[in-house]
Amino acid sequence: MDDVQLWRELGQQFRVDSVRCAAAAKSGHPTSGMSAADLMAVLLAKYLRYDFDNPDAPTNDRLVLSKGHASTLLYAMFRTAGAITDEELLTYRQFGSILEGHPTPLIPWVDVATGSLGQGLPIGVGMGIAGKHLDRLPYRVWVLCGDSESAEGSIWEAFEHASHYELDNLTAILDVNRLGQRGETMNGWHLDRYVARARAFGWHAIEIDGHDVEQVDAAYAEAAATTGQPTVVVAHTIKGKGVKAVENKEGWHGKPLDDPDAAIEELGGLRNITIEVAKPAPGEPHVFETGPLELPRYELGSEVATRKAYGEALAAVGSARGDVVAIDGEVSNSTFADIFKAAHPERFFEMYIAEQQMVAAAVGLQARGWRVFASSFAAFHSRAYDFIRMAAISRATLSLSGSHAGISIGEDGPSQMALEDIAMMRAVHSSTVLHPCDGNQTVKLVAAMADLDGISYIRTLRPNTTVLYGPDEEFAIGGSRVLRSSDDDEVTLVGCGITVHESLKAADALAQDGIAARVVDCYSVKPIDGETLAAAAEETGRIVTVEDHWPEGGLGDAVLAALAEQDARAQVARLAVMEMPRSVKPAELLAAYKIDADAIAEAARTLVRTGVPTT
Amino acid sequence: MDDVQLWRELGQQFRVDSVRCAAAAKSGHPTSGMSAADLMAVLLAKYLRYDFDNPDAPTNDRLVLSKGHASTLLYAMFRTAGAITDEELLTYRQFGSILEGHPTPLIPWVDVATGSLGQGLPIGVGMGIAGKHLDRLPYRVWVLCGDSESAEGSIWEAFEHASHYELDNLTAILDVNRLGQRGETMNGWHLDRYVARARAFGWHAIEIDGHDVEQVDAAYAEAAATTGQPTVVVAHTIKGKGVKAVENKEGWHGKPLDDPDAAIEELGGLRNITIEVAKPAPGEPHVFETGPLELPRYELGSEVATRKAYGEALAAVGSARGDVVAIDGEVSNSTFADIFKAAHPERFFEMYIAEQQMVAAAVGLQARGWRVFASSFAAFHSRAYDFIRMAAISRATLSLSGSHAGISIGEDGPSQMALEDIAMMRAVHSSTVLHPCDGNQTVKLVAAMADLDGISYIRTLRPNTTVLYGPDEEFAIGGSRVLRSSDDDEVTLVGCGITVHESLKAADALAQDGIAARVVDCYSVKPIDGETLAAAAEETGRIVTVEDHWPEGGLGDAVLAALAEQDARAQVARLAVMEMPRSVKPAELLAAYKIDADAIAEAARTLVRTGVPTT
Repeated sequence: MDDVQLWRELGQQFRVDSVRCAAAAKSGHPTSGMSAADLMAVLLAKYLRYDFDNPDAPTNDRLVLSKGHASTLLYAMFRTAGAITDEELLTYRQFGSILEGHPTPLIPWVDVATGSLGQGLPIGVGMGIAGKHLDRLPYRVWVLCGDSESAEGSIWEAFEHASHYELDNLTAILDVNRLGQRGETMNGWHLDRYVARARAFGWHAIEIDGHDVEQVDAAYAEAAATTGQPTVVVAHTIKGKGVKAVENKEGWHGKPLDDPDAAIEELGGLRNITIEVAKPAPGEPHVFETGPLELPRYELGSEVATRKAYGEALAAVGSARGDVVAIDGEVSNSTFADIFKAAHPERFFEMYIAEQQMVAAAVGLQARGWRVFASSFAAFHSRAYDFIRMAAISRATLSLSGSHAGISIGEDGPSQMALEDIAMMRAVHSSTVLHPCDGNQTVKLVAAMADLDGISYIRTLRPNTTVLYGPDEEFAIGGSRVLRSSDDDEVTLVGCGITVHESLKAADALAQDGIAARVVDCYSVKPIDGETLAAAAEETGRIVTVEDHWPEGGLGDAVLAALAEQDARAQVARLAVMEMPRSVKPAELLAAYKIDADAIAEAARTLVRTGVPTT
Repeated sequence: MDDVQLWRELGQQFRVDSVRCAAAAKSGHPTSGMSAADLMAVLLAKYLRYDFDNPDAPTNDRLVLSKGHASTLLYAMFRTAGAITDEELLTYRQFGSILEGHPTPLIPWVDVATGSLGQGLPIGVGMGIAGKHLDRLPYRVWVLCGDSESAEGSIWEAFEHASHYELDNLTAILDVNRLGQRGETMNGWHLDRYVARARAFGWHAIEIDGHDVEQVDAAYAEAAATTGQPTVVVAHTIKGKGVKAVENKEGWHGKPLDDPDAAIEELGGLRNITIEVAKPAPGEPHVFETGPLELPRYELGSEVATRKAYGEALAAVGSARGDVVAIDGEVSNSTFADIFKAAHPERFFEMYIAEQQMVAAAVGLQARGWRVFASSFAAFHSRAYDFIRMAAISRATLSLSGSHAGISIGEDGPSQMALEDIAMMRAVHSSTVLHPCDGNQTVKLVAAMADLDGISYIRTLRPNTTVLYGPDEEFAIGGSRVLRSSDDDEVTLVGCGITVHESLKAADALAQDGIAARVVDCYSVKPIDGETLAAAAEETGRIVTVEDHWPEGGLGDAVLAALAEQDARAQVARLAVMEMPRSVKPAELLAAYKIDADAIAEAARTLVRTGVPTT
């Protein structure tokens, strides 16, 4: 068999296997795999450099299935490469099988989860940046995209950033099969539109018939030879190609075929071609020089913004660890990621105002082992929530920093105030949620984040706050700090971030009223220190939680959950921001929305004297 | 003064007023207003049709400040139009002033909040759709965009959708001042790139010098005369234009000028030009014909998916109310919004796989009084979280429907399973969060949503569920339903959606063990029925909450918060999805992740017999 014959046969094999998988599982998206089968056949047989025995090899090419629903196609490729047996292939969507409905990194040859559309290409941008600018290895990143998903703006963020970073190691393969889930896409088979857009965004674009394997071959060769810019192969394809009953027909998205046996026969029957996929040349990633860890230290009683401490700590961690990389969403002079940038310019990447691309890049970078800190205003991580959610499914390890949290930012107003970020980040599987109140605590938590698995989030403040802790104090993830305590405590004030400072002032005011108040700095919101909270419940009987956040899903909810888990009882009053905030000075806002010292003291007094919790 | 002189003077007045506002507030973004001052001068003086005395006039043009940080420019326009006095202008960012840091609809002449970048243009698309396809009125939508925000993919979603819907009533004005917050944008003054992209997305694009008022005038005239496609005016501008100390200089984003008096002098001093802004011709929006409300009814004991009931109810509500509009993110055959589409094709708009644009369109449509239901998979609303957050700041009224919630969807796997949506939606100010368990309950809640203010969310299920309630039962927002109850109840099972059905089965199993269990259907998660929960706590002493959601921020947290608020005590065990789910059949998943009847009964038994809460 010559190459061309082999590729054609392989395409048919991928189609047959897609039909078989979906038939066995009674679900799946076979027609979406069938349109891209020839595109993947040529890639697997000739262009992909991948050692299936060593998926962690740093020089392996990366293959991302941005159209994750075409998973049967990917799994068919794995069978062809000898990575899985035919028996394993047919465990698709069965209990215990790693071959899930959409690919996840439970599969050794899958780096990232896909299935929420429009994410694979921006993740590929992160991988391309890793290859070109960090690893400095010649691997290529291949991303198979659907045409439907080009409606997602994140695809265009990826186009923009890939071009900006001159990612000639990145090839997007756009499978233009015209049909989305419920009908035709906005652009149908107007391939010229995709080509024009790609070129306008600075890409090299090649238009082909995606079922003509010779054209596919030529396009990949041209992509590999293109320097200074990424390439997109815009391929005219037919959904369900090869089986007349479903070819180019609406109503066949995400369904097994009615008559799989007939379809397999029409496709020429079962094939068992195997391919020895070419392995990459060996190579080792670039290593950045490091020095000793010298964390910043702030004097007790001095004033520093926790966002500033974040930037300084991150730069220090970066000096000690060459794998640490920082990215930012065009606000590095506010998040203070620019301190890292100044210290380690080769390991800083500006993601501009494109938070989806920022988080996707972090996912792509971490897939190659880089330890990424991505910073923006806390409010704007909400732009990337679907990407953060998917990062958890990717079993990704990355750190997010959200500055300018809550109403304490002041005059810029509610659009810039994160008041839902704790709720959002707590509800991410594998997440750690930290909200320090002073500079030294921030420093220690940033250092700890660099060793945490999963998705960690640190929430920092815009205004300066007083340094409460000495620079040698340690802060465990999952811990808390009892700042005031006595045997006579009648109430416990639980805060985090700015409300720790307000709680301390409230405790002073309460002391003047003869009420002893315990103060707990709950800097680790998830995991939370249930034991300390349960002890406070038992010993003081009353708890006031106070947070610069909406009342739902934040510190108050976390405290109640911890108490329930510990089976500890207390009267709990919860202070949070209850109205849409206006746009004035921080102190005016804390007072107006009743999360300042006066409000805390008042809630504590009411609880102690009347037994009625304020909410 | 001739027109050209007037426009030039107006531009200077806007600059002076921007400098004055920021100086008075000691914060703000004057240089961002100064770049676009001439663009807005010509608009206000010649093109805008707006009755400032009647901002609700249906024929008013719409003006959206997508670059919301340039608020001083907008407020300067309001002064010039006589809508506010100079004294009011200088209340910028002061307590009690409606002139917040970024515009919000507290200002009568502002329809939507901006300040999270990249949102104004997609909202403008919604307004354009309203004008062209629903109101059928000749108003124009003008959107002032920054160049920095074009890095947001949502801008390109808007470009795509505006072109698709042939919005020749929409004009984007792109203020290319080259400088973002922390430095140069990716495209600097390469205006040709923006022009090429806009054209590739099907827009008419005009490149001009944004400080040459005659070019601005010509461009707007050309935009107004363009039919069949939207127009973008790509304007070369200078940030801080007119004041040498800041003109085209980095480091002057979001700061008042050092010497405002000198700057005002350099700009030619204070001006007090007023403009009689042209009013639109009167006109009334198109009214769609309606009939009687005939809600679908499902037989007790029959099987129907709540997502199907959603679609059927929405179509019925749409028949009775001509103001109801449905939009969907290319999954209408899964969310069953396609039932509405079939019944009311003129009031259905396909938003394709662009959830940000979908929510933004809803915000734009509701600004013109349309009552919008936007549906997608529940998981994919996370893509639009920043838009939902901002919609709350816009004081928007809109309804979201999220189908395919939780692990009960089965084989498609975690990328398609919403497990954080309740947490996300609870933490939206003004939100209502509903999660019905059967068809008739869904119908009544959909009907109620059409009358709710704020942002409402209904979470629906993929699988069929048994109809538990008769078609004449009523379900109040904030209510619950006690499905099983006796004087002997030792434990209360609290569920919503799929877990109501599992709780009922668990109660049956517990009854066989001699344990009487109360069952509460908490279909209204926010607001939640605290009284019923408190009564259950008091009367049964033990509560098991169970939800198809992560443990954080969902039903369990909401129940604990309600109990705390009611000062009610109970032992509470919380069942939720604790591990990243795999990809198999629904029943296998409910069992594997311990939220099925067996797990609920076991948790209840343990609680009753040992007093130890399962979490």
